Amino acid sequence: MKEAYKHVKDSEVIMTEMVLPNDTNTLNNLMGGKLMHWMDVVAAISAQRHSNSVVVTASVDNISFKNPIALGNVVTLKAQVTRAFNTSMEVYIEVFAEDIPANKKYSSHKAFFTFVAVDEEGLPVKVPELKPISEQEMEFYKGALRRRQLRLVLAKRMNPQDATELKSLFDLDKIGQKE
Amino acid sequence: MKEAYKHVKDSEVIMTEMVLPNDTNTLNNLMGGKLMHWMDVVAAISAQRHSNSVVVTASVDNISFKNPIALGNVVTLKAQVTRAFNTSMEVYIEVFAEDIPANKKYSSHKAFFTFVAVDEEGLPVKVPELKPISEQEMEFYKGALRRRQLRLVLAKRMNPQDATELKSLFDLDKIGQKE
Amino acid sequence: MKEAYKHVKDSEVIMTEMVLPNDTNTLNNLMGGKLMHWMDVVAAISAQRHSNSVVVTASVDNISFKNPIALGNVVTLKAQVTRAFNTSMEVYIEVFAEDIPANKKYSSHKAFFTFVAVDEEGLPVKVPELKPISEQEMEFYKGALRRRQLRLVLAKRMNPQDATELKSLFDLDKIGQKE
Amino acid sequence: MKEAYKHVKDSEVIMTEMVLPNDTNTLNNLMGGKLMHWMDVVAAISAQRHSNSVVVTASVDNISFKNPIALGNVVTLKAQVTRAFNTSMEVYIEVFAEDIPANKKYSSHKAFFTFVAVDEEGLPVKVPELKPISEQEMEFYKGALRRRQLRLVLAKRMNPQDATELKSLFDLDKIGQKE
Amino acid sequence: MKEAYKHVKDSEVIMTEMVLPNDTNTLNNLMGGKLMHWMDVVAAISAQRHSNSVVVTASVDNISFKNPIALGNVVTLKAQVTRAFNTSMEVYIEVFAEDIPANKKYSSHKAFFTFVAVDEEGLPVKVPELKPISEQEMEFYKGALRRRQLRLVLAKRMNPQDATELKSLFDLDKIGQKE
Amino acid sequence: MKEAYKHVKDSEVIMTEMVLPNDTNTLNNLMGGKLMHWMDVVAAISAQRHSNSVVVTASVDNISFKNPIALGNVVTLKAQVTRAFNTSMEVYIEVFAEDIPANKKYSSHKAFFTFVAVDEEGLPVKVPELKPISEQEMEFYKGALRRRQLRLVLAKRMNPQDATELKSLFDLDKIGQKE
Repeated sequence: MKEAYKHVKDSEVIMTEMVLPNDTNTLNNLMGGKLMHWMDVVAAISAQRHSNSVVVTASVDNISFKNPIALGNVVTLKAQVTRAFNTSMEVYIEVFAEDIPANKKYSSHKAFFTFVAVDEEGLPVKVPELKPISEQEMEFYKGALRRRQLRLVLAKRMNPQDATELKSLFDLDKIGQKE
Repeated sequence: MKEAYKHVKDSEVIMTEMVLPNDTNTLNNLMGGKLMHWMDVVAAISAQRHSNSVVVTASVDNISFKNPIALGNVVTLKAQVTRAFNTSMEVYIEVFAEDIPANKKYSSHKAFFTFVAVDEEGLPVKVPELKPISEQEMEFYKGALRRRQLRLVLAKRMNPQDATELKSLFDLDKIGQKE
Repeated sequence: MKEAYKHVKDSEVIMTEMVLPNDTNTLNNLMGGKLMHWMDVVAAISAQRHSNSVVVTASVDNISFKNPIALGNVVTLKAQVTRAFNTSMEVYIEVFAEDIPANKKYSSHKAFFTFVAVDEEGLPVKVPELKPISEQEMEFYKGALRRRQLRLVLAKRMNPQDATELKSLFDLDKIGQKE
Repeated sequence: MKEAYKHVKDSEVIMTEMVLPNDTNTLNNLMGGKLMHWMDVVAAISAQRHSNSVVVTASVDNISFKNPIALGNVVTLKAQVTRAFNTSMEVYIEVFAEDIPANKKYSSHKAFFTFVAVDEEGLPVKVPELKPISEQEMEFYKGALRRRQLRLVLAKRMNPQDATELKSLFDLDKIGQKE
Repeated sequence: MKEAYKHVKDSEVIMTEMVLPNDTNTLNNLMGGKLMHWMDVVAAISAQRHSNSVVVTASVDNISFKNPIALGNVVTLKAQVTRAFNTSMEVYIEVFAEDIPANKKYSSHKAFFTFVAVDEEGLPVKVPELKPISEQEMEFYKGALRRRQLRLVLAKRMNPQDATELKSLFDLDKIGQKE
Repeated sequence: MKEAYKHVKDSEVIMTEMVLPNDTNTLNNLMGGKLMHWMDVVAAISAQRHSNSVVVTASVDNISFKNPIALGNVVTLKAQVTRAFNTSMEVYIEVFAEDIPANKKYSSHKAFFTFVAVDEEGLPVKVPELKPISEQEMEFYKGALRRRQLRLVLAKRMNPQDATELKSLFDLDKIGQKE
């Protein structure tokens, strides 16, 4: 039988890749699409670890690509489940890039993916709850609700007026608050 | 010399792919990461067509994956630039999937990617404006401003209170309006 | 039930690819074998569209490679069925290459592939007829017979003397005729 | 300095490949496009061996695909130069497929590719002549002229009436002759 | 300037991969060659971390493949430098495989690779020494000498009689000692 | 029914590959891991030829990488079974690399892999004996016993004191003997 709940550390996954020629564009930098492909794999493994199920990608949140990652550099991706919702899980992915010979760790992306746990017919199955422990884990856990509402609003499956968590983002008294 | 402006049709790109074994997960369905990789390539070509420049992926908006796409199916991706902002472009991508022997067109994703046009050193260069013509093109053009504010807010580069376009999304008088 | 006939537009497919490092030879140009691979995929999808069946490649006609296609360029492949013969279909493929930043559409290949429609055991199945409409479609339709005879003669499955359509190619009164 | 001529055995190349999942279509058979890709690589190496130059694919002759080649089977490709023409070479490729556990060698394709030898700027360079020795080599050598005329006629670079070698193919006195 | 020495933890790398269809043989298990490819990449990154240089594979020690790793399973590879020798480094790699939905961690390989640090012309450069701390690190450090002699003997670059460390392996008083 | 024995020539396999961009590291040389992948494929085909069975990689002996192999070069791999042991086979692989335009055959690796023949459930099956004929084949056949003992000792499945063949490697009277 599956556990009733799991901790964040149960779903931590580290993936390391080297940027090879076929991963790059004509500027010799890692293509955004390839990076998303790696994000999807590492996040899926993390969601598998939490649910002990096969998982399918349900959504990808806004990703902003800052620094280009060059050919030959090493990319480290870290993934962890931040919160579970019945049959779905939100996964947080952090990306580091390094030019090791130059001793330079020069780039960093962040992203949230969600996955649904499914059985062999592809039908959703329940997943264990996530119990956050550290303060950082707590913050991710709470923010997951707001991000979920944003996803539902953007997918036109929730009326913006009902997105109570999300609305507060635009309230005056939130200004200046760090996330 | 480059044109001062371009139309939507100048950047339309159609890409067709067949789902091969290595694109699939253990349920024999297309992996989300592979689909995003294709989206990135088709959208980059569209942005190249608008800017006649090399382009780099700047951001990806929220994507929601609805129906699984099975091994052997045909995926059609259509991309077009919706609006240009100085050195960046928003590209709209629509995805259709077909099980041709079963005569079934069964899936559809939508996504917005943004790209920055760059020169050979990777520095941003100005792009032509986009002139929308049809009503549909007009709607995409207008919505681009709101989506841009959401990107900036989510990337913590804009104060939610300044996102005037975005805030209106949560106003009472917007309720019930179709986009 | 399948339709008795289809039109050319029912089988039109457009595929767009970007030439990546692994597609190139040591001169940084697209390898002929890779281009043929793409031709095969786009043509197979076109034959699927006409037959609503799984299809297998039956033959490839003479292809002549003119201009090299460089790394980073965009390749557009267009395919359409030109004629159907009981269980097989001839597909016409046109290839364009572009160096978009240089605003140069600089290359063009043409090819004919044939496919056989098969059921799940791999046995041939009947396909709808093709009804040509435009003058160009008509010309492709007629020429298909001659090309078919050439294929059969080259595969030693038809005596050259019986290739009546093909023989006329060498008749005096054909000289100077444009195809 | 390069040799004035070479023999067929100087350009013989054997390539062996195993059909992996990603090389197959939905019937679990090798895709035609993948086979052509392998043919192109083995033939290019053969042309390199003859010319000691970088080479580019110039044309592919009619290929007829007979038997499907199944997943897990072993494909052997043999290539050899049949004749050299100033800066170009015709290469003959023979393909065998085996289901080794079943002890069954069940398929065979034949194809002719032509390549042009080029220098580092991609400009054509002269290649050594080919001196055929065996009877079989002699036959390939002679037939190369006829196949070359067919290529030129099909590429509209030769008037069918001038294709003297080719025309004889349709002469009465050729009937019944084995090639 | 580079450090005079480094610790084992400075070169620890974790890589996680999912076994996809194209990585498998006809029994649907991970091919040995693919696993070695992953081992090579993770070990090279580890050697880069120790040397802050580009590195090239110098040798691979005996690897014994025990349990098959199935399609869809997750493979975790851990690498760390065990000892540095002037311009070369020995790297230890440990491989775990998991069938996560079945909650089964079922396989484990061990291997030693050596790498040489090189400059941009490919010439060897000096690397920092490795200072072992823990007992386990100490044991790997000491064993590295014996494994190095075995490599040299097997490559016929050392006379077996001079392999003093190695010879002791066959001494009576070594019997029964755990490594 | 399977043969009682086979000869070396029954399992000879030649594989030829061209080093493409994605096979190379940042120095534009073939990655060790990719070369091992090719070695594994060619050796597996050789073991299939001997056993007429599906085979799985059991072990890889020490490999020493001498010369770097550059982008665009041609790699030829030759494999042959050297000895069969009940259900397993030792395969010898020789690797040649050529820069054909420079007319330079500049590199050579040697390796021994072992494979186990298996049925469709992955269970070991008996293989035919190998009968060596030439002196060279005889030497490989004899050496196989010593290499097997080294594998067992290294895998801790044989006590070094029982490795009689191997021990003789360190005997005085072996010194100076060529293998």
